[in-house]
Amino acid sequence: MSQVEDLAKRSREASILLRRATPGSKSAAIKAMGARLKSRLPDILEANKADVDQAKTERLSDAKMDRLRLDEKRIDEVAKALEAVGSQPDPVGKVFDERKAPSGIICKRVRVPIGVILMIFESRPNVTAEAAALCLRAGNSVLLKGGHEAARTNRMIATCLQGAVAQEGLPSDAVQMVEGGHETVDELLLLDRWIDLVIPRGGEGLIRSVVEKARMPVIKHYKGNCHVYVDEMADPIMARTVVLNAKTQRPGTCNAAEKLLIHERVAEKLLPQIAERLLKAGVKLRGDDAARRLIKDMKVATEQDWTEEYLDLIMSVKVVKDLDEAIRHINTYGSAHTDAIVTGNEMTARRFLNEVDSSSVMWNCSTRLADGGQYGLGAEIGISTERLHARGPMGAEELTCLKWVVTGNGQLRQ
Amino acid sequence: MSQVEDLAKRSREASILLRRATPGSKSAAIKAMGARLKSRLPDILEANKADVDQAKTERLSDAKMDRLRLDEKRIDEVAKALEAVGSQPDPVGKVFDERKAPSGIICKRVRVPIGVILMIFESRPNVTAEAAALCLRAGNSVLLKGGHEAARTNRMIATCLQGAVAQEGLPSDAVQMVEGGHETVDELLLLDRWIDLVIPRGGEGLIRSVVEKARMPVIKHYKGNCHVYVDEMADPIMARTVVLNAKTQRPGTCNAAEKLLIHERVAEKLLPQIAERLLKAGVKLRGDDAARRLIKDMKVATEQDWTEEYLDLIMSVKVVKDLDEAIRHINTYGSAHTDAIVTGNEMTARRFLNEVDSSSVMWNCSTRLADGGQYGLGAEIGISTERLHARGPMGAEELTCLKWVVTGNGQLRQ
Repeated sequence: MSQVEDLAKRSREASILLRRATPGSKSAAIKAMGARLKSRLPDILEANKADVDQAKTERLSDAKMDRLRLDEKRIDEVAKALEAVGSQPDPVGKVFDERKAPSGIICKRVRVPIGVILMIFESRPNVTAEAAALCLRAGNSVLLKGGHEAARTNRMIATCLQGAVAQEGLPSDAVQMVEGGHETVDELLLLDRWIDLVIPRGGEGLIRSVVEKARMPVIKHYKGNCHVYVDEMADPIMARTVVLNAKTQRPGTCNAAEKLLIHERVAEKLLPQIAERLLKAGVKLRGDDAARRLIKDMKVATEQDWTEEYLDLIMSVKVVKDLDEAIRHINTYGSAHTDAIVTGNEMTARRFLNEVDSSSVMWNCSTRLADGGQYGLGAEIGISTERLHARGPMGAEELTCLKWVVTGNGQLRQ
Repeated sequence: MSQVEDLAKRSREASILLRRATPGSKSAAIKAMGARLKSRLPDILEANKADVDQAKTERLSDAKMDRLRLDEKRIDEVAKALEAVGSQPDPVGKVFDERKAPSGIICKRVRVPIGVILMIFESRPNVTAEAAALCLRAGNSVLLKGGHEAARTNRMIATCLQGAVAQEGLPSDAVQMVEGGHETVDELLLLDRWIDLVIPRGGEGLIRSVVEKARMPVIKHYKGNCHVYVDEMADPIMARTVVLNAKTQRPGTCNAAEKLLIHERVAEKLLPQIAERLLKAGVKLRGDDAARRLIKDMKVATEQDWTEEYLDLIMSVKVVKDLDEAIRHINTYGSAHTDAIVTGNEMTARRFLNEVDSSSVMWNCSTRLADGGQYGLGAEIGISTERLHARGPMGAEELTCLKWVVTGNGQLRQ
């Protein structure tokens, strides 16, 4: 057995022990994770600084640098998130539904852990800790494979996490960091005997490669090419503030808006007001012909722009004829992640909400609200662009599965 | 665009129209499917006879012949199942949960169709109609790829189904039969742009090959190496009847029991009684040394026997020391499909139900009850051995996914 397979097998063994862990011991371990991150803050920041310094020499994009960089505030946020995950109810053992079948057997579905989860991510070392905590909350072992650009930070964080797990009497192999390059990942992706699920988080290339190679199910956290559609019945102030917030509040995230669609009847009046604020916030605008007639300082948007996720202060603008064109454009070029309409017309909104086929569809609010915390679900492992199992913000509950528990008194099949 | 891709693209286009179909029109189309199958019964049986005759020359196993063969009773059963699916509530549009988040946005999850589903199956032409009906119930287009041994039967059934769909004003491309061999399937498995989900039903080789090649999610209906464990506290009569029913009521199905585990303290008394009935029903027994000391006419069970799904009148028997050994054996050699315990001891049962990691775990009833109809879910598309999305019997509801619908009044991310 190779070293990589041994790692995966130990993860499976830990997951079998975890199935019997009490909610209390899991809570304690998760809270201890947060406490250790805070107590080792200087070491983590030092490791992160070394990673950031190296990344600078490798000329990472601003968005990627933003994802990589940790400071006391972000670690505090992570610790708070872990505290919250440690306090949230344990999904394991929850009865999903229960029924008495015609033969008299009682059939119920009960939440149980999935087993072993492989997380693969680029940058974002804060994800390491939250991912581990959520997997543990749901009784799963986790294999964490971070990007090489965050290697030192991740190693330091993993030390804290494993220490916390062991301290509470749980198997430390339940949280393991995977070191190594592409070959290691490729080998892991064949081990469906030991690994039940892969969650890749990163660029399109990484995700495509995982999907092609993996023998186990993959939950993709794919790109967010999110739209705001400003309808002819939009409140002008709401339209301005929602677009500005959706684009600029944190442009490096997958739920930031990348595209603005605006109804032709209000484009002349509203687009200049919206564009002014976006330009002032440093957003570079691209547009179709109609938009460019209204706004100077707008480059032409190419076909590629309509599908692209910028993760940056860039926004493309299209003037549309009506709701139908907006819906068709979003369903054709969008990434089925999060799309919003601003309108005062309920009928228009209902059609948008029904017909746009995205994991989150929104009416009169910012796409940046597509988030487990904002939805009131607690911490999230990410926003799934999968249709199956988990769609949209994915928390601890989505890291469990349902098992049928059937009790009878001698029933047979007739 | 190749002919195969064109087929898939038309399926996608039909699925977009289906999203807007009313529950009533879907119900009517499904019921019309059943009516057409009954009115074309002679043609279907004639096509099936031709398939069966050819299969005989190809020496199919008895279990496979059983799956292939249709008669009036089976078609009646299918028509009844379609009638039931046509009458069952539409899962699309059902609100799964709803909450008001701290910012004041209202977040709800609503069931929506998945999109386009590719079903690949060997033999079992009755599955064709039920699969199509369930996909349509949930608002999905379906591509049906049947086995070559049922080609004539499937073609005739598909004609009935498409006619019924068109008659009710729905797009006939919503139900399409895929003709062609392995290359056709291989090409379809790359078309994740048009196809959202693959459900293969058949032997291990077929399923492994689909998992390796598919770019879209796969829900496996894998083998059922099901166990009945007769505990030391089992009621003797219940033990006999449950084992006999689980093994012989229909041995060609995935929820038929393949293995009998029996506690050593009761083996001497109960095993001869159970074996006598099994032998009388024509079951060939294999066993470990301890079992063979108690029963003549028992071949030795090899290591391979413990993992094998016979789908035939064969059963392997093992005498175990205690509950722990039974659980460990099932979790090691089983297929995590359906496993049952017969015992009068509730503590023992609880441990078995908690620790056996299978899609259905049962106490004091026959494994043959692991079935959507028996659980009161209506018709099933099969029994998923997947952990994600759908585990166990999979009905129309499992053929939908959840979309977040969020409404606000100008909320922004702070």
